[in-house]
Amino acid sequence: MARVVVDVMLKPEILDPQGQAVQRALPRLGFEGITDVRQGKRFELEVEGPVDEAALARIHEMAETFLANTVIEDFTVRVDEPAEARS
Amino acid sequence: MARVVVDVMLKPEILDPQGQAVQRALPRLGFEGITDVRQGKRFELEVEGPVDEAALARIHEMAETFLANTVIEDFTVRVDEPAEARS
Amino acid sequence: MARVVVDVMLKPEILDPQGQAVQRALPRLGFEGITDVRQGKRFELEVEGPVDEAALARIHEMAETFLANTVIEDFTVRVDEPAEARS
Amino acid sequence: MARVVVDVMLKPEILDPQGQAVQRALPRLGFEGITDVRQGKRFELEVEGPVDEAALARIHEMAETFLANTVIEDFTVRVDEPAEARS
Repeated sequence: MARVVVDVMLKPEILDPQGQAVQRALPRLGFEGITDVRQGKRFELEVEGPVDEAALARIHEMAETFLANTVIEDFTVRVDEPAEARS
Repeated sequence: MARVVVDVMLKPEILDPQGQAVQRALPRLGFEGITDVRQGKRFELEVEGPVDEAALARIHEMAETFLANTVIEDFTVRVDEPAEARS
Repeated sequence: MARVVVDVMLKPEILDPQGQAVQRALPRLGFEGITDVRQGKRFELEVEGPVDEAALARIHEMAETFLANTVIEDFTVRVDEPAEARS
Repeated sequence: MARVVVDVMLKPEILDPQGQAVQRALPRLGFEGITDVRQGKRFELEVEGPVDEAALARIHEMAETFLANTVIEDFTVRVDEPAEARS
């Protein structure tokens, strides 16, 4: 069993008003030095069997069809590194 | 300028009904072998200056306060690897 | 063809950190007098045929199973009023 | 204290792939007759004082700036009807 992560973000040229609201709130909340905040979606897929080139290609196709709208969003597909400890 | 990524996911024991709906739709849509789908949020922060231990600690604190509800969500903070090509 | 709207919000006792960040940003952005902001999801369903009690009951069941996690979220189901003009 | 609701939906001409995935999953899950599903955001704002025309105009302006990206999203602003019982 492997985990594949699909990250979906609005394209850079498309405004993210909520991210901007958070970014503008940060100095008032005591957090300086963050010049931009953008919010997207992260999908974690549990995949049976080996995640080889063919499997990644199919997940890429699935992401393109059902997880992202590629007119307004970019996405990445990658096998999750187990080193990512979560707090 | 560095990018820091904060990923926020529902805790594993908390049901994600929409992720489940997507997971159950996949075989019908021709995608087999994906046994679980969970959807979370990804925040990309552009940070001025060096992202040292102190900066990461402050971003961790910010994530804990303003990006995640740690009663129901887990989060990770990490410096983005530029190798992540986006499609 | 009728439209049914399912609104899904975190339960009132569950903290919504992002809504809070937006709320705290508003005075700095020139908007006073908003004491709380909470963010949820809105689903618009296009339904074939009459939306009678039986249809609403089935949509309620679907929402409970696939759109909301009733441990942490509340939801409402209602037929959309066409008077809701959108800007 | 009054509640104002801001609904934000992708414009009708912009594809909502996740809504589509849910819609296509429904027949397999035993729910027939739903021809489209679209997912958007719902913001609930608690407002101090009377929600008169001027207050609504200001909330409209705020929504346009910080809650919706009007290039890709439509939004509505309305005073919440207390009759909306939540289950």
